Amino acid sequence: MNLLYFDDLKIGEGFLTGSHEVTEADIKRFAGEFDPQPFHLDDEAARGTIFGGLAASGWHTAAITMRLLVTSGPRFAGGIVGAGGEVEWKTPTRAGDVLHVEGEVLELIPSKSRPDRGLVLLRSRTLNQRGETVQTLTAKLMLPRRGA
Amino acid sequence: MNLLYFDDLKIGEGFLTGSHEVTEADIKRFAGEFDPQPFHLDDEAARGTIFGGLAASGWHTAAITMRLLVTSGPRFAGGIVGAGGEVEWKTPTRAGDVLHVEGEVLELIPSKSRPDRGLVLLRSRTLNQRGETVQTLTAKLMLPRRGA
Repeated sequence: MNLLYFDDLKIGEGFLTGSHEVTEADIKRFAGEFDPQPFHLDDEAARGTIFGGLAASGWHTAAITMRLLVTSGPRFAGGIVGAGGEVEWKTPTRAGDVLHVEGEVLELIPSKSRPDRGLVLLRSRTLNQRGETVQTLTAKLMLPRRGA
Repeated sequence: MNLLYFDDLKIGEGFLTGSHEVTEADIKRFAGEFDPQPFHLDDEAARGTIFGGLAASGWHTAAITMRLLVTSGPRFAGGIVGAGGEVEWKTPTRAGDVLHVEGEVLELIPSKSRPDRGLVLLRSRTLNQRGETVQTLTAKLMLPRRGA
Protein backbone atom coordinates (compact mmCIF):
# COMPACT_ATOMS: atom_id res chain seq x y z
CA MET A 1 0.00 0.00 0.00
CA ASN A 2 1.34 3.43 -0.98
CA LEU A 3 1.70 6.23 1.53
CA LEU A 4 -1.11 8.78 1.47
CA TYR A 5 -0.40 12.49 1.15
CA PHE A 6 -2.80 15.37 1.83
CA ASP A 7 -3.54 15.63 -1.90
CA ASP A 8 -4.54 11.96 -2.10
CA LEU A 9 -7.46 12.27 0.33
CA LYS A 10 -11.08 13.04 -0.48
CA ILE A 11 -13.80 14.35 1.81
CA GLY A 12 -16.13 11.50 2.78
CA GLU A 13 -13.50 8.84 2.21
CA GLY A 14 -13.76 6.08 4.82
CA PHE A 15 -11.52 3.46 6.37
CA LEU A 16 -11.72 0.50 8.72
CA THR A 17 -9.07 -0.84 11.11
CA GLY A 18 -8.39 -4.32 12.43
CA SER A 19 -9.62 -5.22 15.91
CA HIS A 20 -8.14 -5.44 19.40
CA GLU A 21 -9.33 -7.35 22.47
CA VAL A 22 -9.19 -5.57 25.82
CA THR A 23 -8.53 -7.82 28.81
CA GLU A 24 -9.33 -7.25 32.47
CA ALA A 25 -5.58 -7.25 33.19
CA ASP A 26 -5.02 -4.52 30.55
CA ILE A 27 -7.76 -2.35 32.08
CA LYS A 28 -6.33 -2.66 35.61
CA ARG A 29 -2.72 -2.15 34.51
CA PHE A 30 -3.50 1.02 32.52
CA ALA A 31 -5.65 2.37 35.35
CA GLY A 32 -3.00 1.57 37.95
CA GLU A 33 -0.52 3.72 36.08
CA PHE A 34 -2.72 6.54 34.73
CA ASP A 35 -6.22 6.56 36.19
CA PRO A 36 -6.22 4.86 39.61
CA GLN A 37 -9.90 5.15 40.52
CA PRO A 38 -11.92 2.27 42.04
CA PHE A 39 -14.22 1.77 39.01
CA HIS A 40 -11.16 1.19 36.77
CA LEU A 41 -9.31 -1.06 39.22
CA ASP A 42 -11.74 -3.43 40.87
CA ASP A 43 -14.98 -5.05 39.74
CA GLU A 44 -16.45 -5.24 43.28
CA ALA A 45 -15.70 -1.59 44.01
CA ALA A 46 -17.07 -0.56 40.61
CA ARG A 47 -20.52 -2.13 41.26
CA GLY A 48 -21.79 0.72 43.42
CA THR A 49 -20.52 3.46 41.07
CA ILE A 50 -21.95 5.15 38.00
CA PHE A 51 -20.22 2.47 35.86
CA GLY A 52 -21.97 -0.49 37.56
CA GLY A 53 -18.88 -2.69 37.08
CA LEU A 54 -15.25 -2.59 35.98
CA ALA A 55 -14.76 -0.11 33.12
CA ALA A 56 -11.66 0.97 31.22
CA SER A 57 -10.40 4.52 31.63
CA GLY A 58 -11.57 6.71 28.75
CA TRP A 59 -7.90 7.50 28.09
CA HIS A 60 -7.27 3.77 27.74
CA THR A 61 -10.00 3.56 25.09
CA ALA A 62 -8.38 6.56 23.38
CA ALA A 63 -4.94 4.93 23.49
CA ILE A 64 -6.29 1.65 22.05
CA THR A 65 -7.99 3.65 19.30
CA MET A 66 -4.61 5.21 18.46
CA ARG A 67 -3.00 1.78 18.40
CA LEU A 68 -5.62 0.54 15.94
CA LEU A 69 -5.19 3.63 13.73
CA VAL A 70 -1.39 3.36 13.71
CA THR A 71 -1.17 -0.40 13.19
CA SER A 72 -4.06 -0.97 10.78
CA GLY A 73 -5.52 2.39 9.77
CA PRO A 74 -4.74 4.63 6.78
CA ARG A 75 -1.02 4.82 5.94
CA PHE A 76 -0.34 8.55 5.99
CA ALA A 77 2.99 9.93 4.78
CA GLY A 78 4.82 11.28 7.83
CA GLY A 79 2.71 9.13 10.14
CA ILE A 80 -0.36 9.97 12.22
CA VAL A 81 0.57 13.32 13.78
CA GLY A 82 -2.23 15.04 15.67
CA ALA A 83 -2.51 18.60 16.91
CA GLY A 84 -5.46 17.58 19.07
CA GLY A 85 -9.12 16.81 18.75
CA GLU A 86 -12.47 16.33 20.37
CA VAL A 87 -13.16 13.06 22.13
CA GLU A 88 -16.44 11.69 23.52
CA TRP A 89 -16.93 8.52 25.51
CA LYS A 90 -20.38 7.09 24.84
CA THR A 91 -20.33 3.69 26.52
CA PRO A 92 -17.64 2.24 28.82
CA THR A 93 -15.14 -0.26 27.45
CA ARG A 94 -15.45 -3.51 29.41
CA ALA A 95 -13.13 -6.48 29.98
CA GLY A 96 -13.37 -8.84 27.00
CA ASP A 97 -14.51 -6.15 24.58
CA VAL A 98 -13.12 -6.39 21.05
CA LEU A 99 -12.74 -2.90 19.60
CA HIS A 100 -12.27 -1.65 16.06
CA VAL A 101 -12.32 1.79 14.49
CA GLU A 102 -14.30 3.19 11.58
CA GLY A 103 -13.19 6.52 10.20
CA GLU A 104 -14.02 9.19 7.68
CA VAL A 105 -12.31 12.27 6.24
CA LEU A 106 -14.46 15.24 7.31
CA GLU A 107 -12.47 18.22 6.05
CA LEU A 108 -9.28 19.05 4.15
CA ILE A 109 -7.69 22.42 4.88
CA PRO A 110 -4.50 23.40 3.01
CA SER A 111 -2.17 25.41 5.23
CA LYS A 112 -1.81 29.06 4.22
CA SER A 113 1.44 29.65 6.05
CA ARG A 114 3.04 26.28 5.20
CA PRO A 115 2.44 25.28 1.55
CA ASP A 116 4.13 21.92 2.20
CA ARG A 117 1.35 20.61 4.44
CA GLY A 118 -2.38 20.54 5.16
CA LEU A 119 -4.76 19.89 8.03
CA VAL A 120 -7.07 16.87 7.88
CA LEU A 121 -10.14 16.60 10.08
CA LEU A 122 -10.63 12.91 10.66
CA ARG A 123 -13.68 11.58 12.44
CA SER A 124 -13.38 8.13 13.98
CA ARG A 125 -15.80 5.92 15.85
CA THR A 126 -14.49 3.16 18.09
CA LEU A 127 -16.97 0.28 18.30
CA ASN A 128 -17.19 -2.84 20.43
CA GLN A 129 -18.21 -6.36 19.31
CA ARG A 130 -21.89 -5.52 19.96
CA GLY A 131 -21.73 -2.61 17.52
CA GLU A 132 -21.95 -0.03 20.33
CA THR A 133 -19.89 3.14 19.91
CA VAL A 134 -17.55 3.43 22.89
CA GLN A 135 -15.79 6.56 21.62
CA THR A 136 -15.97 9.19 18.92
CA LEU A 137 -12.94 11.30 18.08
CA THR A 138 -12.61 14.19 15.66
CA ALA A 139 -8.85 14.59 15.29
CA LYS A 140 -6.84 17.37 13.65
CA LEU A 141 -3.98 15.75 11.77
CA MET A 142 -1.10 17.33 9.88
CA LEU A 143 -0.21 15.75 6.55
CA PRO A 144 2.54 16.60 4.08
CA ARG A 145 1.55 17.62 0.53
CA ARG A 146 2.68 15.68 -2.50
CA GLY A 147 5.86 17.01 -4.14
CA ALA A 148 6.44 19.50 -1.31
CA MET B 1 -9.73 17.42 52.53
CA ASN B 2 -13.47 17.05 52.04
CA LEU B 3 -14.98 15.67 48.87
CA LEU B 4 -16.26 18.30 46.45
CA TYR B 5 -19.79 18.16 45.05
CA PHE B 6 -21.18 20.08 42.06
CA ASP B 7 -22.69 22.65 44.45
CA ASP B 8 -19.31 23.32 46.09
CA LEU B 9 -17.64 24.57 42.89
CA LYS B 10 -17.46 28.13 41.64
CA ILE B 11 -16.73 29.38 38.13
CA GLY B 12 -13.16 30.63 37.90
CA GLU B 13 -11.98 28.48 40.80
CA GLY B 14 -8.47 27.14 40.15
CA PHE B 15 -6.34 24.21 41.25
CA LEU B 16 -2.81 22.93 40.92
CA THR B 17 -1.55 19.33 40.90
CA GLY B 18 1.74 17.81 41.98
CA SER B 19 4.33 16.98 39.33
CA HIS B 20 5.45 13.89 37.42
CA GLU B 21 8.72 13.17 35.60
CA VAL B 22 8.52 11.45 32.21
CA THR B 23 11.44 9.18 31.41
CA GLU B 24 12.72 8.02 28.02
CA ALA B 25 11.79 4.45 28.99
CA ASP B 26 8.20 5.56 29.80
CA ILE B 27 7.87 7.27 26.42
CA LYS B 28 9.08 4.23 24.51
CA ARG B 29 7.02 1.75 26.53
CA PHE B 30 3.77 3.69 26.09
CA ALA B 31 4.47 4.17 22.38
CA GLY B 32 5.36 0.51 21.90
CA GLU B 33 1.95 -0.46 23.24
CA PHE B 34 -0.30 2.31 21.90
CA ASP B 35 1.44 4.56 19.34
CA PRO B 36 4.28 2.66 17.65
CA GLN B 37 5.60 5.37 15.32
CA PRO B 38 9.34 6.07 14.84
CA PHE B 39 9.28 9.55 16.46
CA HIS B 40 7.86 8.05 19.68
CA LEU B 41 10.17 5.01 19.74
CA ASP B 42 13.67 6.04 18.73
CA ASP B 43 15.64 9.26 19.09
CA GLU B 44 17.74 8.69 15.92
CA ALA B 45 14.67 7.96 13.80
CA ALA B 46 12.87 10.97 15.28
CA ARG B 47 15.58 13.45 14.20
CA GLY B 48 14.46 13.62 10.59
CA THR B 49 10.75 13.99 11.46
CA ILE B 50 8.51 16.93 12.31
CA PHE B 51 9.38 16.33 16.01
CA GLY B 52 13.16 16.72 15.54
CA GLY B 53 13.83 14.16 18.31
CA LEU B 54 12.10 11.64 20.56
CA ALA B 55 8.66 12.90 21.63
CA ALA B 56 5.95 11.31 23.77
CA SER B 57 2.68 10.31 22.14
CA GLY B 58 0.03 12.97 22.70
CA TRP B 59 -2.11 10.25 24.28
CA HIS B 60 0.70 9.58 26.74
CA THR B 61 0.71 13.26 27.73
CA ALA B 62 -3.08 13.01 28.13
CA ALA B 63 -2.77 9.88 30.28
CA ILE B 64 -0.13 11.51 32.51
CA THR B 65 -2.41 14.55 32.85
CA MET B 66 -5.17 12.22 34.06
CA ARG B 67 -2.78 10.60 36.54
CA LEU B 68 -1.88 14.02 37.96
CA LEU B 69 -5.55 15.04 38.20
CA VAL B 70 -6.57 11.79 39.91
CA THR B 71 -3.65 11.55 42.33
CA SER B 72 -3.20 15.22 43.27
CA GLY B 73 -6.00 17.26 41.70
CA PRO B 74 -9.38 18.31 43.11
CA ARG B 75 -11.09 15.59 45.16
CA PHE B 76 -14.48 15.30 43.47
CA ALA B 77 -17.24 13.19 45.03
CA GLY B 78 -17.75 10.15 42.80
CA GLY B 79 -14.27 10.60 41.28
CA ILE B 80 -13.16 12.21 38.04
CA VAL B 81 -15.68 10.88 35.52
CA GLY B 82 -15.47 12.43 32.06
CA ALA B 83 -17.91 12.31 29.18
CA GLY B 84 -15.19 13.62 26.88
CA GLY B 85 -13.49 16.86 26.02
CA GLU B 86 -11.31 18.83 23.67
CA VAL B 87 -7.58 18.25 23.76
CA GLU B 88 -4.77 20.22 22.09
CA TRP B 89 -1.09 19.36 22.03
CA LYS B 90 0.98 22.53 21.85
CA THR B 91 4.57 21.35 22.37
CA PRO B 92 5.84 17.75 22.49
CA THR B 93 6.59 16.13 25.83
CA ARG B 94 10.27 15.11 25.91
CA ALA B 95 12.28 12.61 27.96
CA GLY B 96 13.16 14.16 31.31
CA ASP B 97 10.25 16.60 31.29
CA VAL B 98 8.56 17.22 34.63
CA LEU B 99 4.88 17.91 34.09
CA HIS B 100 2.21 19.44 36.29
CA VAL B 101 -1.35 20.57 35.69
CA GLU B 102 -3.07 23.89 36.34
CA GLY B 103 -6.84 23.92 36.11
CA GLU B 104 -9.88 26.13 36.27
CA VAL B 105 -13.65 25.65 36.48
CA LEU B 106 -15.05 27.17 33.26
CA GLU B 107 -18.76 26.37 33.48
CA LEU B 108 -21.27 24.69 35.78
CA ILE B 109 -24.36 23.23 34.13
CA PRO B 110 -27.00 21.55 36.34
CA SER B 111 -28.57 18.57 34.58
CA LYS B 112 -32.22 19.07 33.59
CA SER B 113 -33.02 15.40 33.22
CA ARG B 114 -31.02 14.22 36.27
CA PRO B 115 -31.47 16.52 39.28
CA ASP B 116 -28.90 14.48 41.23
CA ARG B 117 -25.95 15.62 39.09
CA GLY B 118 -24.38 18.40 37.07
CA LEU B 119 -21.89 18.90 34.27
CA VAL B 120 -18.62 20.71 35.02
CA LEU B 121 -16.50 22.16 32.23
CA LEU B 122 -12.95 21.99 33.52
CA ARG B 123 -10.10 23.57 31.60
CA SER B 124 -6.63 22.24 32.34
CA ARG B 125 -3.19 23.17 31.10
CA THR B 126 -0.34 20.68 31.38
CA LEU B 127 3.01 22.46 31.69
CA ASN B 128 6.62 21.30 31.61
CA GLN B 129 9.47 22.46 33.86
CA ARG B 130 10.24 25.33 31.44
CA GLY B 131 6.70 26.69 31.82
CA GLU B 132 5.73 25.62 28.30
CA THR B 133 2.19 24.35 27.81
CA VAL B 134 2.37 20.83 26.37
CA GLN B 135 -1.39 20.23 26.44
CA THR B 136 -4.66 21.99 27.03
CA LEU B 137 -7.80 20.01 27.81
CA THR B 138 -11.36 21.20 28.28
CA ALA B 139 -13.07 18.23 29.88
CA LYS B 140 -16.76 17.58 30.50
CA LEU B 141 -17.09 15.98 33.91
CA MET B 142 -20.13 14.62 35.70
CA LEU B 143 -20.43 15.47 39.39
CA PRO B 144 -23.09 14.46 41.92
CA ARG B 145 -25.05 17.20 43.67
CA ARG B 146 -25.02 17.64 47.41
CA GLY B 147 -27.84 15.90 49.23
CA ALA B 148 -29.01 14.12 46.08
